[in-house]
Parts: sequence; C-alpha cells; structure tokens
Amino acid sequence: MNDSRVQASTQKLLELLEELGAYTASGPGVTRLLYTKEWRQAQIFLQQKMVGFGLKVTTDKVGNVYGRLCGRSPEEMVILTGSHIDTVVNGGKYDGAYGIAAAMVALQDLQMNYGQPKRTLEVVSFCEEEGSRFPIAYWGSGHVTERYDGSEAATCKDADGISLQAAMEEFSFLQGVTEGNGARNDIGAFVELHIEQGIILEKTDTQIGVVQGIVGQRRYMVKVSGAANHAGTTPMLMRQDALASAVEMLYVLEGAAKLAGEPLVATSGKLEVHPNTPNVIPGEVLFTLDIRHIEEDDLECFCAKLFSRYYEITAERGVTLEVTPVLHTLPAPMDTKLSTALENICRQQGKTYRTMVSGAGHDAQLFAPRCPTAMIFVPSRSGISHSPEEYTSPKQLAAGLEVLTAMLYELAY
Amino acid sequence: MNDSRVQASTQKLLELLEELGAYTASGPGVTRLLYTKEWRQAQIFLQQKMVGFGLKVTTDKVGNVYGRLCGRSPEEMVILTGSHIDTVVNGGKYDGAYGIAAAMVALQDLQMNYGQPKRTLEVVSFCEEEGSRFPIAYWGSGHVTERYDGSEAATCKDADGISLQAAMEEFSFLQGVTEGNGARNDIGAFVELHIEQGIILEKTDTQIGVVQGIVGQRRYMVKVSGAANHAGTTPMLMRQDALASAVEMLYVLEGAAKLAGEPLVATSGKLEVHPNTPNVIPGEVLFTLDIRHIEEDDLECFCAKLFSRYYEITAERGVTLEVTPVLHTLPAPMDTKLSTALENICRQQGKTYRTMVSGAGHDAQLFAPRCPTAMIFVPSRSGISHSPEEYTSPKQLAAGLEVLTAMLYELAY
Repeated sequence: MNDSRVQASTQKLLELLEELGAYTASGPGVTRLLYTKEWRQAQIFLQQKMVGFGLKVTTDKVGNVYGRLCGRSPEEMVILTGSHIDTVVNGGKYDGAYGIAAAMVALQDLQMNYGQPKRTLEVVSFCEEEGSRFPIAYWGSGHVTERYDGSEAATCKDADGISLQAAMEEFSFLQGVTEGNGARNDIGAFVELHIEQGIILEKTDTQIGVVQGIVGQRRYMVKVSGAANHAGTTPMLMRQDALASAVEMLYVLEGAAKLAGEPLVATSGKLEVHPNTPNVIPGEVLFTLDIRHIEEDDLECFCAKLFSRYYEITAERGVTLEVTPVLHTLPAPMDTKLSTALENICRQQGKTYRTMVSGAGHDAQLFAPRCPTAMIFVPSRSGISHSPEEYTSPKQLAAGLEVLTAMLYELAY
Repeated sequence: MNDSRVQASTQKLLELLEELGAYTASGPGVTRLLYTKEWRQAQIFLQQKMVGFGLKVTTDKVGNVYGRLCGRSPEEMVILTGSHIDTVVNGGKYDGAYGIAAAMVALQDLQMNYGQPKRTLEVVSFCEEEGSRFPIAYWGSGHVTERYDGSEAATCKDADGISLQAAMEEFSFLQGVTEGNGARNDIGAFVELHIEQGIILEKTDTQIGVVQGIVGQRRYMVKVSGAANHAGTTPMLMRQDALASAVEMLYVLEGAAKLAGEPLVATSGKLEVHPNTPNVIPGEVLFTLDIRHIEEDDLECFCAKLFSRYYEITAERGVTLEVTPVLHTLPAPMDTKLSTALENICRQQGKTYRTMVSGAGHDAQLFAPRCPTAMIFVPSRSGISHSPEEYTSPKQLAAGLEVLTAMLYELAY
C-alpha cells in the first residue's frame, strides 16, 4: 500500500479505538465487564460498524460478534482474526480492542484493494477473556473451541451474587443470533494481534513480536500453619513461625526461578498473615504461586522440585503445609508455518521483529490445539497493561496492522 | 507456714482469680479493656475485697487502686506489689490479675501471721498495661512513675474515636480519689509476680523464674516500594518485586537473629501486600519488625547492621525503603540485691528456680529506673498467654505466692 493509504487505515484504526474506549463504566481508564451496559453498547457499536464495513454480522448465544467477508470458495475453512472486547477494571483501551479494530480495518482494506478473497475471512469480537467479572476466563473463545458448553453459567457468580446465566439472559442483540452454543468446526486458522503487555519489545526497540507460543500456567494456593506465639517470650529456636517459613519458601522460589532462567517466571502476588499483629509470631500464612513456562516438562519439573524443597522446609521447621492447585493450563505452541510466514512478512516490510514467548494468556491459546494459530505483538509503553497508563503509539499500532493485513492476504487470497 | 495455711491461702487466691475472671465483656476468655463497664466493676470489686482484707483503700485520678497495710514506721518508704487489671481482647484470667490477687492474699497472710509490718506494704491494681483499647501502654504504672502526666489523654483515641480523656471522665470510684495526677515518690521497692507468658519454665520443669531484667524493645514499620507489573510478561531479571525484596529482608532478619543468639528475638508479625493479586507482581509491601534484647548496645548494633543490609538489598533490587521507628523502650535491669534475695528464698523453700530475662514488657520496667524492683515468674502452660487457653496450675500459682510472701516479709518486717 502507498503512504496515503497506510495513513488512512491508521486513522480508521485510531478512530475505532477511541470510539471503543468511550464505552466504559465510570472511573479511570476503560472498564468494560462482561454483560454490562457498556459492554453491550460496545458490541452493538461493533455490529453497526461491521455492517458499514461491508461485513455480514452474526452473533452467538454467549455474545461473540462476528463480521464475515465471504470467500469465493465457501467450502474452504474460514480464516478467523480478532480478540476480546471485555477489559479488566480500570484497564486500558488497547488490550483486546486493538486486535478487533485492526482486524476490521484489515478486512476492509483487503476487500477494497483486492476484492473478494478466495477463502472466507472473519473478524471476531470475543465476549470475554479476562475473567474480571466472573471467576471464569476465555468465556468467548472457550465456547468457540468447545472448552465450555454453557453449563458452567448456572453456578458461576459475580461479586454481587449474580449468576453468569442470569447476566447472559439479560442482554439481546440487534443482529440475528446463530444456532447452537457457539462452537465452530469451520475455522481453518486463527490470527490474533495484541499488545505485548510486557517490556521486551520496547527494551529491545523492536516493532513486532512473532509469538512462538503461549506459556503454560500453574497457580497454587499455599497454606503454612505454625503456632501463633508471643514475640517477646518465645526464643528464636522454639518458634513455629508461619511467616518465617513462608519467607524461606518464597526466597527459595525466587532463587530457583532465576536459576532456571528465561522464559520461566514465578511470582507470589498475594500473601496473607494471621493474626497479623506486630507483637505476635504469625500462626498461619496463605500465599499464591503463579509459575509459567513454555515447556510443560520444565514446568512440571520446576514445580516438583520446588514442592519437594517446601516439604523439607516444613519438616525442618515443624510447621505444616497445604498446597492447593487452582489453575493448570498447558503451554500452547503457535503454528510454525504461520510464524515463519510472519517473520518473512516482517522482513519484506522492513520491520524489526523478534520471536518471543507470550507470558500472558490469550484467546489464541484455545485455538492452538485445534487449528494453525498465530499471534502478533506490538510494544507496550514501559511494559504497562491492565492500567489506564496502557499505551502503544499510532506508528507502532500501524506496524502491527500492516503485518496482520499481509498475513490475512497470504491466508485468504 | 504449715500445710493447712498454705492450702487456705491458695484457695483464697483461686477464688479471687475466678471472681476477677467473671468481670469480662462477652466472647471467649477474659476481655477487660480500660474504662469499660467490666473494668470498672473489677476495680470496684477489688476495692471492696481490699477493705474486707483490712487494707486502707485509695484510688488515683487514672483509676489505679491501692490497698495499704500501714507500717509502724510511716517515715520509711512504701513496699509496693501488684500488677495490672486490664486484659487484651479474649485474653486469659492470669495475666495481670494473678499479680494483684496474690499480692492481696500475701498481705492478708502477713498481717495475720506477723501483725503490723515495720514498713508500709501496699498492693496496687494498675488500671492499664496492655495498650489494647487505646494506642498507649502502661497508663497505670506510667502515671505512678511520671512517664505520663495525663496530657496524653486528650489526643489518644480508641478504635471508635472515643478519647482517653472522655473515657476516663466517664468512670467514678467508690473510695476517695487521691490528690494529684497519681505520681508517687514514696515507693521504696516494687515487686511484681506474673505468669511467664513463655515456655521456658515449663520446658525446663522449673517452678520459679527470677527475672534479671526486662528486654528493651524496638518496633519499626518498614515500607518497600517497587513496581507492580504483569506476573507473566515481566522476566525475572526485569522486576522490582516489593514482596521478593521484603522476603529477602525477612530471611536476613531471621538468620541474623539466630546468629545473634539468646536473648535476642526478632519478629515480623504483620505484613501487607499491595495490590495483593495472584497474577500481579507486588508493587508495595509493608511489614513490622519487633526486636528485643536485654542489652541496649546489642540491640542498637543489631538494628544498625540489619538496616545497613536492608539498604544494600534495596539498592541491588532497585526498590525503595522507608523505615519508621514506632517504639523504643530501654532494657530494664532488675535490682541485683532483690534478685539474689529471691534466689535465696527459692533455695530455702526448696523450690526449683532459674534466673531469666523477660521478653515481654511489664509494669516493673517503669519502676526499675526509680527504685529497687523485682519480678517473679511462674510457668505458663505451653507458653500460651493472651488467649483463653492461658493456664497455670493451682500448685504453680501457690509456689509463686509463697515466694512473693517471703520476699515481702523480708522487705517490710
């Protein structure tokens, strides 16, 4: 495309992002939780825009919105691209929204420049990915890929006690809802464009991240029980200090994670002490572990060694340990052929790029086991996301759009 | 004393403890906070009992209650004994109360067995020691020893916003209130009998602890500020993890404390993490430090080394540190002559004893700089105190009473 066309596409993209960002609950940044008024308005806005972009709009029963550009060979599998419309509380305007807006602009550009594609192209705005309102994540892509069948909605409740089922029934759409529970078996490839949500691209001054895979995650709740006691009258060697025990465990965690090296990351983000009084030796400590790696074997090995060491610490200190797994997602490797194609596109377009791992979860990881899947990252300023401070410059956004457009062209034309 | 007399005294002591334990707010154990209804009733009960024991009752303006057994030489200084009537929330029935009840029984026994003493003996029920309702401790003994002059009451407030001044004005006493703010310059010696609140006497199967000194205490609030960030996308070496930093600091604390050896104790009892979310690297951590030792120089040296290491950790990790001192009490050595006298009494009475340090604070520490002061400990079952589980057997309680009685005899007869 020539410069003026690129400029016009970037302009369209920025406008779409601004318009989407306006659908938010009050407070700083963007708050668009699943099945809320602002969420519904954003999905309706997208439906209207898609119609304007010449796309055929459909919706499924959970509220995923699709815009279809029909191909000349309807018997061939669909090329799907997009991301999620929901946000965290006080999030930014790029996480999720960028992948949808860029996909819409790409489809319009492709149609304008090259006419009808051979294979059908579809943009999708998944209803939910973050798990911010209900304690369930990937509600949108999880329906498309048959992780969920909808039966989960009856028991899953938000902080106000509203069930996912009740919240879902409250909304209705402008356009016709498709039959079934939203599952699709006609997807031939999925491509997701997203902000990095990390600092690597910025730090290395790179325009594009070609994602090789999304890490597997394990989350645990660890409970250490010792004996609460008087901080003044209990000698150091007669203590069963739950916090001192947890401290040793977390010190071991960090050391082991640094030793393991990239791409392993290990974090304790939440820790609570009981009774939490300055002059009482803690009797109980609860803390979370979040451990991620791109190789399931490495993850398994790291966790096994870690907990084996934890049980040693427990025995040495006369405290007790309870480890509860709360999440276990497998690593999701991206399609090698698509990744290579993305690298070639970057080279052809003269863009700096690097292959990398995604440490964050994305809708793409649900598609990876079912069809060739690819992910493209653009930089996040200071690595910040899930914050009103989230920012990617227009130039960086435009670079991602160009790569996505070229990839979709290769797949569908 | 013969066996039947000892038995009668023990019985009186146990009855007094039972009666005092009945003055409590609802809930498990004993809750008798300063200037509450149950506190007032307990002090009135003691006044009535003291009158019945033949003691002259007075009260000062903060609500300390005294029972006086006048000596034959009124020009000589007074021998004071007793402890505090207040408790923590859901405390036990021995902490404080035992020292008062035993002192009352001792004075009655001495009078019955030996008549009027040479020097005046007084039992005191201090209004407050624990700091459980108002953020100020030793309100009773602090007035007697001129740590406080009462001006602190206007600004000091409880959790409901009631000022200490307002709470104090609400109560009134049966017996005449003495003039002045409660300060006394006529005390020639102070002897406090108390439960150990630690496990040393029980572990070593010892009847009596002869306290050599009460530890100095330093409390600090430590704030570590890093950068909250995504737990998945931030590599281990690019983190400013406030919790991992705090963990290293607390690991260093425990190691240094164990290395320093007894009687140093160091505790972090309270720790809070922000934002405290499983998948977010903590941006800020607040924790308390409580460090105690019997030697001020050792305490000073330990803290100086510790914080010097903390600032190194801070620099290495790119986080910031804020250390706020919140308490600094000096060690209080007990009187050597009185301690030796207590050891002799134990030997004469055939009781097992050991000299020891008190890791907990007591009213005695306020008297130590002003007059010869002594403390006697009896065992605490499993070292537990500040709990409904607090327990010392009748036999152990009786042993402490016998030692106290003999000590008061030596001092006053």
